[in-house]
Amino acid sequence: MGECLSLESYGYRGELVALLKKANVSVYDRIEVKTSDGFVFQGILMPKPELSAPYIIVLKLDNGYNIGVAIDSSTEIHLIEKGKLSQPTPPKASLKIREDLPIVSILGTGGTIASRVDYKTGAVYPAFTVEDLYSLVPELSEISRLRMELLFNIFSEDMTPAYWKVIAEKVAKHIEEGVDGVVIAHGTDTMGYTAAALSFALRNLPVPVVLVGAQRSSDRPSSDAALNLIGAVSVAAKAPFAEVVVVMHGETSDSFCLAHRGTKVRKCHTSRRDAFRSINAKPLAKIIGDTIKMLTNDYLPRDKKRELKVMSDFDEKVALVKTFPGMTPDLIDTLIDKGYHGIVIEGTGLGHAPRSILSSIKRAIDEGIAVVMTSQCIWGRINMNVYRRGVELLKMGVIPGEDMLPETALVKLMWVLAQTRDLKEVRRLMLTNIAGELNPRTIHSHYPPVEV
Amino acid sequence: MGECLSLESYGYRGELVALLKKANVSVYDRIEVKTSDGFVFQGILMPKPELSAPYIIVLKLDNGYNIGVAIDSSTEIHLIEKGKLSQPTPPKASLKIREDLPIVSILGTGGTIASRVDYKTGAVYPAFTVEDLYSLVPELSEISRLRMELLFNIFSEDMTPAYWKVIAEKVAKHIEEGVDGVVIAHGTDTMGYTAAALSFALRNLPVPVVLVGAQRSSDRPSSDAALNLIGAVSVAAKAPFAEVVVVMHGETSDSFCLAHRGTKVRKCHTSRRDAFRSINAKPLAKIIGDTIKMLTNDYLPRDKKRELKVMSDFDEKVALVKTFPGMTPDLIDTLIDKGYHGIVIEGTGLGHAPRSILSSIKRAIDEGIAVVMTSQCIWGRINMNVYRRGVELLKMGVIPGEDMLPETALVKLMWVLAQTRDLKEVRRLMLTNIAGELNPRTIHSHYPPVEV
Repeated sequence: MGECLSLESYGYRGELVALLKKANVSVYDRIEVKTSDGFVFQGILMPKPELSAPYIIVLKLDNGYNIGVAIDSSTEIHLIEKGKLSQPTPPKASLKIREDLPIVSILGTGGTIASRVDYKTGAVYPAFTVEDLYSLVPELSEISRLRMELLFNIFSEDMTPAYWKVIAEKVAKHIEEGVDGVVIAHGTDTMGYTAAALSFALRNLPVPVVLVGAQRSSDRPSSDAALNLIGAVSVAAKAPFAEVVVVMHGETSDSFCLAHRGTKVRKCHTSRRDAFRSINAKPLAKIIGDTIKMLTNDYLPRDKKRELKVMSDFDEKVALVKTFPGMTPDLIDTLIDKGYHGIVIEGTGLGHAPRSILSSIKRAIDEGIAVVMTSQCIWGRINMNVYRRGVELLKMGVIPGEDMLPETALVKLMWVLAQTRDLKEVRRLMLTNIAGELNPRTIHSHYPPVEV
Repeated sequence: MGECLSLESYGYRGELVALLKKANVSVYDRIEVKTSDGFVFQGILMPKPELSAPYIIVLKLDNGYNIGVAIDSSTEIHLIEKGKLSQPTPPKASLKIREDLPIVSILGTGGTIASRVDYKTGAVYPAFTVEDLYSLVPELSEISRLRMELLFNIFSEDMTPAYWKVIAEKVAKHIEEGVDGVVIAHGTDTMGYTAAALSFALRNLPVPVVLVGAQRSSDRPSSDAALNLIGAVSVAAKAPFAEVVVVMHGETSDSFCLAHRGTKVRKCHTSRRDAFRSINAKPLAKIIGDTIKMLTNDYLPRDKKRELKVMSDFDEKVALVKTFPGMTPDLIDTLIDKGYHGIVIEGTGLGHAPRSILSSIKRAIDEGIAVVMTSQCIWGRINMNVYRRGVELLKMGVIPGEDMLPETALVKLMWVLAQTRDLKEVRRLMLTNIAGELNPRTIHSHYPPVEV
């Protein structure tokens, strides 16, 4: 009875409890799991997020990461060793939050950010209640009154335009309910794309919308989750701007965060805590603790009376194609034949593509497909008037992506094509600055210096 | 007669001379050209590179750039204004070069680098003789005895694996003739890809092979051509290493160049002079004037007795595919159906791909296609053991690209597949360091700092 209760108090329910009991396994035991599709995992059984799917168990692997493993009746579970970790103290929810603090909504979409560490034991489990969050990061109780809603819980590599729509509409609902800012907890892999999507979808924002993630699982000593959350909630609660931003570490030590404009931000490192970078733009703000230092005056100011307009549709028939030496027309031809509506080319240099795909690009445009040129250089600006190849592409009707990131150009083209398929209008909108994605001039100092 | 002679002395020949004479046009006149495919260009008729195609005229446009325009009998040529530029002083070839200087071969492939400026007039024309080069950059005569060969003259966006083979074999020929180093003048758009290709193709190099380009046309006051050429020739003549490197500006002012290892370099800015960056690695050397300061001891030392081995074949049935939210299986399926031999995926984060393409990736591998995972983050390292998605992909047989650039992984896979189609052997080679493309550990300091 004790063990059964214990499993349930850590979030395990129903069938799973029976299976785990049968294997004589409790939370914090070291176990081996053989799934029906042949995977073998060894690790410590961890507490389970309340809103996770009922058939998932959470294992802490030897490399320190937690994974969810789907269990069915043919999964084999073996006990290796009892009680590898002591049980964490349950979170205390007796905090008194000041009534005059701004209200911030935190929306969960997945990722490692919203997970709770018990500092005594190093155990980690997802924190989905406000009390858990205050307990994980006590500083938050001095910054804002938090509300929380879990929208879904997916790997960010599985994020799609359909999810962007759900997030945009949920953000709008929370803003309409009067909150002072919204924080979205998101996996880092595609956070830049989602930030761009929300930047276009949420027109006339009255308050800030902040995406935040963690590069290191919060059960690791080097986790960036706490500082990022403090930075994100601070920006949502009191930043002077009303834009979509990503708030993440500004350098690898726990010294400050940066708020990057949603259309100008990119994940540039697989694992560093300061992976996110503003490209061709300055970050909007530096956040030290809960203090916000603006780095520019060029922003939409916070104004709770401004009326939010939601344009959350995205056309999914849009693809990104990066060019490379030896490329054949195969990839572009397929997109034409499959009835795509838009293609963003990640070409070379100032906006060039190999001769081998020129006739396919021409055919695409002739068949009414919007083709936008961006550069795989990442930094800089498309300029197709300099060399003959650029002139040829412009003459075919290719739309120059100016200083937009390829990823932002993709998201914008999806958004524009959901409004119109008229190529003239598509061109006009792609060349119109909607959400800070186009700068009228290139500021060269935005390129990071080299250290030698 | 005078005018006819004049046109010929500037490189125009045959039919073109007749057409230009008919329009009463001389070099340095301002003219308008309407091509048979409808392009209209206005600019100043410039001297023509001797080895360019016979039907090309060179125009200096109002934006300062020179372009080549193909002329046929239906092209309309109109004189706008006579003699807009005074004629340049012909280069003086009376330099005395010291007999004890190292010998460096310069191979031309195209690009703006090998163009000659007349400093009096600002006129520019391609420099294809050694005398022209010494005249353009007099410092070179103190560094090396130059030889020169024009291999071809193409936009670098049109570079293909077939051209890489030609370059590799020509480099080998020059090295076998005993030169102390080889410089390859190359357009910047795909110079990183070619650098990687030569790094794999030229095994056991005895002397350095240096790719060099220019980000600004050498007729602009801000041209980087001279400093880059001095840096490149210095490295070829006397650097202590025998590797394939890219030598370009290290910062935006004319202060120094950097030599980047060919497998670790990438064009990261569309227009800045310091566009090229070493990724996940330190540059090999800093070059101030003609002085080489090594930044690492980790290199293959120069040794003229080492016997070069050329492996210049590349399999062109390899594609690079960048993932994005909302991606469908269409692109991967096409590559399978078209009989491709290899696919490099530019996934997200530590090496993830959206669920929507997993079954296509599995099908590709099941059909014998080599699939390599890299990251669109650019900096960092693939680690597919951290999250469940990575584990799933590894289990399917996806080969982790470690800390390789996506572009380098593409080139390497083309090179490996030209040697073997056996997936086990492909995996072994992809995971074996061949030319500095794989570092055993990630050095975090190679990520550029942010300036705020």
